Amino acid sequence: MEEVVIKFIKKPKLRSPVLIEGLPGVGNVGKLAAEHLIDQLKAVKFADIYSKHFPPQVLVNDDGVIRLVNNELYYKKLPKSESDLIFYVGDYQGLTPEGQYMLSSKVLDICEEFKVSRIYTLGGYGMGKMIQDTRVLGAATSNELVEEMKGAGVVFPKGEPGSGIVGASGLLLGLGNLRGLEAVCLMGETSGYFADPKGAQAVLEILTELINVKVDFQDLVDKADQIDAIASKLKDLEETAQAGGGMPTPNPDDLHYIG
Amino acid sequence: MEEVVIKFIKKPKLRSPVLIEGLPGVGNVGKLAAEHLIDQLKAVKFADIYSKHFPPQVLVNDDGVIRLVNNELYYKKLPKSESDLIFYVGDYQGLTPEGQYMLSSKVLDICEEFKVSRIYTLGGYGMGKMIQDTRVLGAATSNELVEEMKGAGVVFPKGEPGSGIVGASGLLLGLGNLRGLEAVCLMGETSGYFADPKGAQAVLEILTELINVKVDFQDLVDKADQIDAIASKLKDLEETAQAGGGMPTPNPDDLHYIG
Amino acid sequence: MEEVVIKFIKKPKLRSPVLIEGLPGVGNVGKLAAEHLIDQLKAVKFADIYSKHFPPQVLVNDDGVIRLVNNELYYKKLPKSESDLIFYVGDYQGLTPEGQYMLSSKVLDICEEFKVSRIYTLGGYGMGKMIQDTRVLGAATSNELVEEMKGAGVVFPKGEPGSGIVGASGLLLGLGNLRGLEAVCLMGETSGYFADPKGAQAVLEILTELINVKVDFQDLVDKADQIDAIASKLKDLEETAQAGGGMPTPNPDDLHYIG
Amino acid sequence: MEEVVIKFIKKPKLRSPVLIEGLPGVGNVGKLAAEHLIDQLKAVKFADIYSKHFPPQVLVNDDGVIRLVNNELYYKKLPKSESDLIFYVGDYQGLTPEGQYMLSSKVLDICEEFKVSRIYTLGGYGMGKMIQDTRVLGAATSNELVEEMKGAGVVFPKGEPGSGIVGASGLLLGLGNLRGLEAVCLMGETSGYFADPKGAQAVLEILTELINVKVDFQDLVDKADQIDAIASKLKDLEETAQAGGGMPTPNPDDLHYIG
Repeated sequence: MEEVVIKFIKKPKLRSPVLIEGLPGVGNVGKLAAEHLIDQLKAVKFADIYSKHFPPQVLVNDDGVIRLVNNELYYKKLPKSESDLIFYVGDYQGLTPEGQYMLSSKVLDICEEFKVSRIYTLGGYGMGKMIQDTRVLGAATSNELVEEMKGAGVVFPKGEPGSGIVGASGLLLGLGNLRGLEAVCLMGETSGYFADPKGAQAVLEILTELINVKVDFQDLVDKADQIDAIASKLKDLEETAQAGGGMPTPNPDDLHYIG
Repeated sequence: MEEVVIKFIKKPKLRSPVLIEGLPGVGNVGKLAAEHLIDQLKAVKFADIYSKHFPPQVLVNDDGVIRLVNNELYYKKLPKSESDLIFYVGDYQGLTPEGQYMLSSKVLDICEEFKVSRIYTLGGYGMGKMIQDTRVLGAATSNELVEEMKGAGVVFPKGEPGSGIVGASGLLLGLGNLRGLEAVCLMGETSGYFADPKGAQAVLEILTELINVKVDFQDLVDKADQIDAIASKLKDLEETAQAGGGMPTPNPDDLHYIG
Repeated sequence: MEEVVIKFIKKPKLRSPVLIEGLPGVGNVGKLAAEHLIDQLKAVKFADIYSKHFPPQVLVNDDGVIRLVNNELYYKKLPKSESDLIFYVGDYQGLTPEGQYMLSSKVLDICEEFKVSRIYTLGGYGMGKMIQDTRVLGAATSNELVEEMKGAGVVFPKGEPGSGIVGASGLLLGLGNLRGLEAVCLMGETSGYFADPKGAQAVLEILTELINVKVDFQDLVDKADQIDAIASKLKDLEETAQAGGGMPTPNPDDLHYIG
Repeated sequence: MEEVVIKFIKKPKLRSPVLIEGLPGVGNVGKLAAEHLIDQLKAVKFADIYSKHFPPQVLVNDDGVIRLVNNELYYKKLPKSESDLIFYVGDYQGLTPEGQYMLSSKVLDICEEFKVSRIYTLGGYGMGKMIQDTRVLGAATSNELVEEMKGAGVVFPKGEPGSGIVGASGLLLGLGNLRGLEAVCLMGETSGYFADPKGAQAVLEILTELINVKVDFQDLVDKADQIDAIASKLKDLEETAQAGGGMPTPNPDDLHYIG
């Protein structure tokens, strides 16, 4: 078995496509954002990516049918735009540094094959506290791109993120840059405590302008409301418990089922 | 040394065989079940599988002779049935995700070589509590197989197992499906606290119907009784100890020597 | 860089040599025994083994000159015996299961090249308590070898060692057996708490009979006395401390500098 | 993607250059020293080294532009000296033992390509306590080099460093020696508690004599003063806190931003 196996369902003809990456990460912001866009734009899956760098695991659908954990590529043709779209999403990131490098390299091979004109990677920026007004931070492969992003409302605070960007959202920029690809990372601020649809919405509000598509955000708003409700219930229970009550705390997994 | 080394003792001629996997896992349900079937059907070993993805370890038999930890393949011809049987059992699963993928891939190569018609993987489904009536949960590579299994008494509760199936029992389905092989995972409910012959019996009661063989379960019943006796003794001692007694608790390893 | 690099200083001509392995392990029994034999027999180094499966480390000699951590091969011609000797010793075992398999495989390649007639691997058998009369336990690749070893005073208690033999002392038997090499593991009982020259002596008293050489054990006796003295001092201090004294305990590393 | 990728910006012609390594390590002494020398001598970058053995991470510059974590090679021509200089510095060392071996091997390939005449590796020697007079300890590939270094003020205390030298600073000596390259490790004593510009200065005072260059140390002195100030403030706060005050302790990261 090869390290990374790509199974194409079909090979669409795309005009200088933009690749949008959204894999699991801080607050699942990138994954929530990319999958929302796929849903809204009715993008079509055209490839499955399997790897021994993913967990040795199958997931079981509600009908009892399994599927091997993977990453997936979707496309969406945008006839009114200069660029079509490719989406790169999935269940997991590579489990090891080596796996991360191998997977991002393979995806960049595909970017070159499809003559991708730009890469956007989407992620969360963990603040360790609750967020009111969600900023979208950026990082990019060139000064020109930074300037363009500033014009779109992305902020670039000096010294942030101090620890850099880890995982596919970083590597696609770093390795992409070595191949001469231009790439931007958009990070929505998030507490980092649970899946954060608000962070995803903030990222999408800027990204959709940049790629010139319009989408409805109601699904993300609904998910955010559900999470707020659970978080609020959790807080009440904690206060009750501290006040002497013996009620069990709700399962914190409740906060994760969304996204 | 290659990653996975397969040493054939002989290459039997088999008619569209069914592969049955039972490796160590939750409650050792799969291993207990497959090894019981091998014993009862007097299946014959035809291959040893060695790998650097197993622990660097030899086991010592009671006579002082060693054997390298391995996986093994057995076969049983069933002249009255359409399909003969292959069993895949062993001491360990691969130690790393990569090792898991490499081992399952190699076993699937053998499945293709022997024109395996179906794969059954056997395992336990850990409930984290003592079980009264042991259900057998399933997962499969297609809707048709799910329906067939429902007819055989296998249950497919929506959303279970929530975390998917990890290890060879999952990968043989996931990777097998990519090669067009049909495969089913049968999971016996088990507390997960110790080796569970009852879970193994529940799985076998369904599997033996599916593959149309009859076996005696007395050995598994005896093992279950032994474990119940030890568990009960352990519980008594705990209660005595809590009541003020200072008696030492028995070695919990006692619960593992079976299976 | 290859996984395992063997640098021959020279290639001695040896008559059906016996390979004796003694690498770090429980109580350092195997390493102490093999290195004592090398010293006493004035065996000569003929190869260095380097590997990326060892720690990325150099050791510094007392004169300030470094050497890369390695394994080493020594030989000793025994004109009066049918078989010459090869010793396999070193600073470390492979750090990972994969590294263990690769290193033992390479050493077995050398065994085949030199037409090794038998392998003895030396180790400790940790008892978790202080030992009075040190038994030497065995494991071997065949019943005939087991019987021969029983005649030499090696014991083979049923069910011991229950967890098998881990590391090079086990793999050289397991992988060697697959190549048709006969091999024996000799394990000296040891507390496992510190380096144990007594365990090494017990192993050597049997091994030297088997390979028909005579050696002086005074160095090992002296080392054992030193360790006893430190252990005794440590015990006194502990008792003093428990009796209310505030004296610092000696550095437990003192117990390791030997061996 | 290859294990280690070297991207040459240019290939300078150098006369029997000396390679100076300073990667992150104990007290960051080696990295601080080598980077100070690069700054002072205005050395020029000529190669980037990328590897899947580094973290899957990009760093973000103050202007928002990313760069993939890497190692770098710089050169400085010294027309008045017999030997030009190559510097080997970077963000990280290899994450695994295997990665360490692969990276050092690749750098030694470059040493051979450029006909490097000597290697100096720079590091810290952690004392676990505050240091007044910083000694520079050494280790080398030959007795002749040890003697030469003693003449330059380097000390070689018997039995130190007892645990050897781990990482690139050790491997370049150990693997270099196998290729016939002469190499020295210079280790500045350091508490090991934080980045230590004083340790770096001590190492450089000896190294600059050896390679016959003159540099100003004011930057390192300033950095040391800053760290002393922070350490002193930290100590005051601790004492205040112990005296009953409830003041928050300063972020210990403050001590790391330098270097």
